[in-house]
Amino acid sequence: MIDETQDKRIIEPKVLKGFRDTLPAMEIQKKAIINKLETHFSSYGFVPIDTPVLEYTEVLLGKGGGETDKQIFHFKDNGEREVALRFDLTVPFARFLAMHQNELALPFKRFHIDKVWRGENPQKGRFREFTQCDFDIVGVDNAQADYEILAMMDSSFALMGISDYRFCVAHRGLFNAFLSYLEVENKSVDILRTVDKLRKIGTDEVKSLLQEITSSEEKADKIVSFITKIDENEPFLDTLHRLSRLAGDEQEHTQRMEQIYQYLSDAKIQDHFTYDPSITRGLDYYTGIVYETFLTELPNFGSVCSGGRYNDLASLYTKEKLPGVGSSIGLDRLLAALEELKSPVLKSGSSADVIVFCLDPTLRGWYDSLARTIRTSGLRCDVYMLDKKMGIQFKYAEMNHIPFGLTCGSEEFAANSVTLKNLLTRETHRNISIEDAISLIQRK
Amino acid sequence: MIDETQDKRIIEPKVLKGFRDTLPAMEIQKKAIINKLETHFSSYGFVPIDTPVLEYTEVLLGKGGGETDKQIFHFKDNGEREVALRFDLTVPFARFLAMHQNELALPFKRFHIDKVWRGENPQKGRFREFTQCDFDIVGVDNAQADYEILAMMDSSFALMGISDYRFCVAHRGLFNAFLSYLEVENKSVDILRTVDKLRKIGTDEVKSLLQEITSSEEKADKIVSFITKIDENEPFLDTLHRLSRLAGDEQEHTQRMEQIYQYLSDAKIQDHFTYDPSITRGLDYYTGIVYETFLTELPNFGSVCSGGRYNDLASLYTKEKLPGVGSSIGLDRLLAALEELKSPVLKSGSSADVIVFCLDPTLRGWYDSLARTIRTSGLRCDVYMLDKKMGIQFKYAEMNHIPFGLTCGSEEFAANSVTLKNLLTRETHRNISIEDAISLIQRK
Repeated sequence: MIDETQDKRIIEPKVLKGFRDTLPAMEIQKKAIINKLETHFSSYGFVPIDTPVLEYTEVLLGKGGGETDKQIFHFKDNGEREVALRFDLTVPFARFLAMHQNELALPFKRFHIDKVWRGENPQKGRFREFTQCDFDIVGVDNAQADYEILAMMDSSFALMGISDYRFCVAHRGLFNAFLSYLEVENKSVDILRTVDKLRKIGTDEVKSLLQEITSSEEKADKIVSFITKIDENEPFLDTLHRLSRLAGDEQEHTQRMEQIYQYLSDAKIQDHFTYDPSITRGLDYYTGIVYETFLTELPNFGSVCSGGRYNDLASLYTKEKLPGVGSSIGLDRLLAALEELKSPVLKSGSSADVIVFCLDPTLRGWYDSLARTIRTSGLRCDVYMLDKKMGIQFKYAEMNHIPFGLTCGSEEFAANSVTLKNLLTRETHRNISIEDAISLIQRK
Repeated sequence: MIDETQDKRIIEPKVLKGFRDTLPAMEIQKKAIINKLETHFSSYGFVPIDTPVLEYTEVLLGKGGGETDKQIFHFKDNGEREVALRFDLTVPFARFLAMHQNELALPFKRFHIDKVWRGENPQKGRFREFTQCDFDIVGVDNAQADYEILAMMDSSFALMGISDYRFCVAHRGLFNAFLSYLEVENKSVDILRTVDKLRKIGTDEVKSLLQEITSSEEKADKIVSFITKIDENEPFLDTLHRLSRLAGDEQEHTQRMEQIYQYLSDAKIQDHFTYDPSITRGLDYYTGIVYETFLTELPNFGSVCSGGRYNDLASLYTKEKLPGVGSSIGLDRLLAALEELKSPVLKSGSSADVIVFCLDPTLRGWYDSLARTIRTSGLRCDVYMLDKKMGIQFKYAEMNHIPFGLTCGSEEFAANSVTLKNLLTRETHRNISIEDAISLIQRK
C-alpha cells in the first residue's frame, strides 16, 4: 500500500531552530539538579502541581495581544479551538488557582519545574524550548512569606553548589511611593520600563529617556540618584533608609523590608543579599519586594533567578484576591552558565558506578547474577552485552564515564571470585570476593 | 493604554478537552513513582535523554499520512515550518539515534519518561496529554538484552508495589515462521491486525475475518488454534515447543525464547511470565519477542506496559542498522488503574511530615529556626504563616495530609521546649525538646 520508492527515502534527522536534544551526560546532571531542588522545596512543605502544556490561547494571553502574542506558539487544533503552548508557568498557575481554589488550603505553596516555549530568536543560553523552575506562596501577604522565598533561593543555590552569585533585592512599593512623592506616578509604567533597561543601556541613556518621560531634568536626576547605589558596599539597611527618606519618609514598605531583613539575619544569611535600587522588574504586576540574581563571573549573562511579590495573581480568572510571592530559576540558562564556567558542580554524568565486562559469553547468566548482587547494595551496575574484544568494552566504559570494571573468567567463576579494576587509575584487585569488590567501589 | 472595561472582564478558567491539571496529592505520588523508576533504570546503567516536544512534522510522521496524521497536533509555526507535538517517545528516539550515533557508545541503553500528545477521543484512563515511560536497549540483538528488558519490567512493577499483573509474552518471529509454513506470509499485515483484536472482538469474529483474509477455513482454523492457549496453566516451554512444532519445527526463534527463559529462570522470575500466543502487537516493525501486561483485577483496562524487539529502529533517518528491544509503561493509565483499585500503593500524598503552628506571631523568627532544625534531620517541615485561629490551622494541616503538628508558646519558648501532636491519633507530647520531637516523628 505504501509506495516503495518513497519508503526507502531517508529523512534528514534534524531538530527545529532554537530546540535541541539533551545527551545523556548533560541530562543526568540536569535531572540530578532537578531532583535536588524538588527534594529541597518539599522540605519546606511546598508541593508540586502539573498543568497542561497546551491551553486555550485566550486563557494564556488574557487581555491578549501585545508583545507576547508574536512570541508564543499558537494554532487551531483539529476541533477548531485556538490553542497555545504555555510561555511561562505563572499564567497557568493563576488559571489553576482560580479553577481549584476550593480544593486547596491557603496559604498554598507550590513548585513547578517544567518546559515552556517562546518563539523569540535564539541567543547564547536562550532557547525556544527551555525549563523554568518556579516556586510561589499564595494567599499570604507578610514578611515571613517574602523571607521564606528568599531563604529558599539562597539554599537552592547552595545545594546546586553555586557560590559566586549576588541576590539583588529592592522594593517596588517603595519605588512607587517615591514616584508619588515626585508626583510622576502617572508615568510609572514608562519609568519602570526605562529603569529596567539600566544594565543594558547605561545611566546616561536612562537619564535622557527619563527626562523625556517626566519633562523635567530635576526629576530625571532624582530618579537616577534613587536607583543608584552610592557605593557597592553600602549596608542593606543604610540603603533602605536612604531610599525611604528620598520617598518622603515612607513607612509601610520600609518596615516590611526591615522585617524581612530581620528574618534573614535570624537565619544568618543576610550577607547574601544586596539592596539594589535599580532592580524594579519591568512587569507591572509586582507590588512588593522584587529580586534578580547575577552570577559574579558572568555579569552579562543576565538574571538566572528572579521574582517578587504581586498583589493579585489570578485576577484575570476570579474575583478572589490572591496575593503571592514567588521566584523563578531559569534552569537551562543556569546550566549553560555553569557549562561556560566549567563549574565543578557539573560532574562526569557517568551512566553507572561499575560495569561487568563480558570475558566469556557462556558465563552471561553469572554476570547478570553478579550485577543483581551489586545493585542490591545501591550501586548502579551495567553489564556489557556484546561479544567484543576487551579494547572495545573498555572504550564503551570510557564513553559512559563508568569508573570501575569487573571481570570474571572461568577460573574465577570456579573460585567464586572476581577482578576489579579502577578504570581511571588502572589499579587492579584480583581474586577478590564480590562483597569486597562492592566495598572497594563504595569507598571511592 | 489597555481598555479598562476589557481589563476587568473575567476569563473562564478552563482546560482543553482531554487535558487536565494534576493536584498536589496526585502529583506527589506520580513524582514519587517516576523518581523510583528513574533510580531503578539507572541502577541497570540506563541513561536519560531529552528531546524537543515539538519537531518537524515530516520527521515525526516519516512515510507520512495514514491514521497517525489525524491523531497528532500539528501546525505551521511563525516561520512557516510544518511542526507537530510528539505522539510517542519512540520516533523521536529513532531520530535522536540517527543524529547522535557518533556521540554514543553501543549498546545504548536509554530511558525517557515524559509527556506525549494524541488528538484521539478521551476515554476512561485515556487522555490527549499523557505520560509515557520508555526504556530501550539499542545496538544488540541477543537473548541477554531481551531478558534485561523483561527483568526491568518485572522489578519496576515490584517497586511500584503492583503485584496482581500478568506479563504476556510471545515471539513475532515464530508467528511469522508459522505464517510462512502455512503459506500465508504475504497476508501477514492483515492477519496481524486481526489477531491483535482478539481481546476486543473475540475468537469467532477473528476466525471469520481470518477466513476472509486467507480464503481458507482450514488456515483460519489453524491460525486460531496457534494463537489459543490450550489451557491457562500450560507451562511456558510447553507452549513454546507446541508452537514451534506448528511452525514446522522452527529453530532460530525457538532457541532465542529458550535462552531468554533460561535467564529468567536463573533470576528466579520465570513464573511471572506467561507465553500467550495471542500477543502479536499490531505494529509491523516488531520482529522478535513481544509482550503486553495486564492487571489481573482490571482485565478490560488494556495493556499498561508493552513492547518488543525491532530489527531496524532508525531506518527512516539512517542507513545504519540499529536493532533494539524496548518497553513502554503507560504511566497515566497505570495511575488511573491504581486509583480505580484504591491501591494502597497510592498513599496520602502529604505535603510535609510536620507543621510548626503559629501560636504567637511575635515568635515567628523562632518558629522558622525550629523548622530549619527539623529540616536538617531530613524531615519535611512546613511553617504556618497566617494569624489564624488554631481550628483553621488544623484544617490547613488536614487538607495537606500533614501527620504531625508542633506548637510552642511563650512559656515553652522560655523553657526551650515544644509540644508535639500526632494529628491523626491526637496523641500529645508536651514540654519535650525539639530533638525528642524529631525522634518521635522519625519513629512513626
